[in-house]
Amino acid sequence: MKVLITGGAGFLGQRLARALLKRGQLSDSQGQPRTIDELVLVDVVAGNDFGDPRVRVVTGDISDAALLRELVDERTQSIFHLAAIVSGAAEADFDLGMRINLDASRALLDACRLRGHRPKVVFTSSVAVYGGKLPALVRDDTALNPQSSYGAQKAIGELLLNDYSRRGFVDGRVLRLPTISVRPGKPNKAASSFASGIIREPLNGEAAVCPVSPDLRLWLLSPRGAIESLIAGHELDGPALGMSRTINLPGISVSVGEMVEALGKVAGPEAVARITFAPDPAIERIVNSWPGAWDTARAKALGLVADPDFESIIRAFIADE
Amino acid sequence: MKVLITGGAGFLGQRLARALLKRGQLSDSQGQPRTIDELVLVDVVAGNDFGDPRVRVVTGDISDAALLRELVDERTQSIFHLAAIVSGAAEADFDLGMRINLDASRALLDACRLRGHRPKVVFTSSVAVYGGKLPALVRDDTALNPQSSYGAQKAIGELLLNDYSRRGFVDGRVLRLPTISVRPGKPNKAASSFASGIIREPLNGEAAVCPVSPDLRLWLLSPRGAIESLIAGHELDGPALGMSRTINLPGISVSVGEMVEALGKVAGPEAVARITFAPDPAIERIVNSWPGAWDTARAKALGLVADPDFESIIRAFIADE
Repeated sequence: MKVLITGGAGFLGQRLARALLKRGQLSDSQGQPRTIDELVLVDVVAGNDFGDPRVRVVTGDISDAALLRELVDERTQSIFHLAAIVSGAAEADFDLGMRINLDASRALLDACRLRGHRPKVVFTSSVAVYGGKLPALVRDDTALNPQSSYGAQKAIGELLLNDYSRRGFVDGRVLRLPTISVRPGKPNKAASSFASGIIREPLNGEAAVCPVSPDLRLWLLSPRGAIESLIAGHELDGPALGMSRTINLPGISVSVGEMVEALGKVAGPEAVARITFAPDPAIERIVNSWPGAWDTARAKALGLVADPDFESIIRAFIADE
Repeated sequence: MKVLITGGAGFLGQRLARALLKRGQLSDSQGQPRTIDELVLVDVVAGNDFGDPRVRVVTGDISDAALLRELVDERTQSIFHLAAIVSGAAEADFDLGMRINLDASRALLDACRLRGHRPKVVFTSSVAVYGGKLPALVRDDTALNPQSSYGAQKAIGELLLNDYSRRGFVDGRVLRLPTISVRPGKPNKAASSFASGIIREPLNGEAAVCPVSPDLRLWLLSPRGAIESLIAGHELDGPALGMSRTINLPGISVSVGEMVEALGKVAGPEAVARITFAPDPAIERIVNSWPGAWDTARAKALGLVADPDFESIIRAFIADE
């Protein structure tokens, strides 16, 4: 079988690729194990091919419907659609966010529909679909009320994936990811970029600015946990998902203050001293609209798991990076 | 000011046009009363212009972005976006539903965005955005889980209208309409077409087939109530809507059996005898996914009202038609 990862050069895309190459197989929409003999990584920049002959790196614009029709053929049994314009960038450039987060997602689903072979499609969504007046614990049946264009575009993608699945065009799964922390590398334009920066930079001996209050509660998942969840979500039996293809992935609810405290335990007070708090209203407005926790009963019943605690997330980051 | 009604030749569009011509004014987004000196009715077929010099009838395809850019100018302070492909038709023709219910709605919002004058936009949504496992009483914060393409497309339209409003591109209001009954005229391709047919046809001395069980509970609003709600929803003060532009309009919760009983009271047993029950699984699957009632506290607090009962709806239909 052929597997396609959009955003394949990105942080999650590259890790997922490595995990899939190591794993060597995935189940198809009939639940049958299939050997991965081709793994296509499409992105605007070229990803690493890991020197593996199964990998094909494609650079291109995923809002180009012709490119998608070429990439999705009858052998493409699994698609991980990770490409996205992150929250801060989609708020700054409305057209760009609409083109990648909405139009490209739809074009990808239509490429599948036109082939008619009903591939598995894993679509990553986000805490950002929630907003407005939220209960302390967001439930699976809590209404979406996104307060960012990114969140609105992700919520629209969820609706499309559910409808295309209901109609039998794809076998879709929407995985709502908690905020991923600790991400390696540089800060990005996500409003939640600080959730990695305030840990990563001090561990690297660098200064970090935290644009939100220590009281802000975040719903977090580690990179390792995210990759495990993407694969576990793919492997779920379609009919077991019932009338909704959308799953709120398990995470842990941690305040920024507790994150800093965990950093102190792992790396000492000198690491904590590298963090400065300087509130940024534009970032606060977006991240304050996100839930700090959601009910994970459904996800757990489906066999999906969270990290044990934030300290173990920091230790995993140190081990991996 | 200029007012634009899409779907202006349709049943609601024509009644709304008549009501607006009689009313003569609407408030703009600053809450200031403005005289309606032009009323544009756009639809695929030509609507009635009521012999009124203020009316301009335009026939065209509202998914044509160039047409929309021409229709929406700086004087267009109010838009009622009623044009839609109904539930049964959007289920039968996926592409048509996507083009009109999604692409045209977005093109209309983009026409407003490009002008930059932030008009009021009233978007009609539907009970069909709900579905799946629903509480007995749907609340404002109950998640959308549409089980039809029409419902998914309307839910996407809601998200767009909310985001375009949040960003200041339009001053939008999403009015989720109950099922409208009793509609005049002929049956249409809406899955809920029977909700008018089982009353209208017997009153006209004709036979009617009811494709659902008498136990099915519907959430209903009369045509008069719908027009009043559209205008009242337009007149609401934008900031009063807070973080959600979407309002579940008040309706009445009536079972099909109770509708038939009310028909008997108004028109006698001979009218009731004209109804035959013949379940249609395709229709039942769609309408059974809709809520039979929702919480109207927010709408009522905003001053929106429902019909008193179904008997009065039948009597109003007889009076009007």
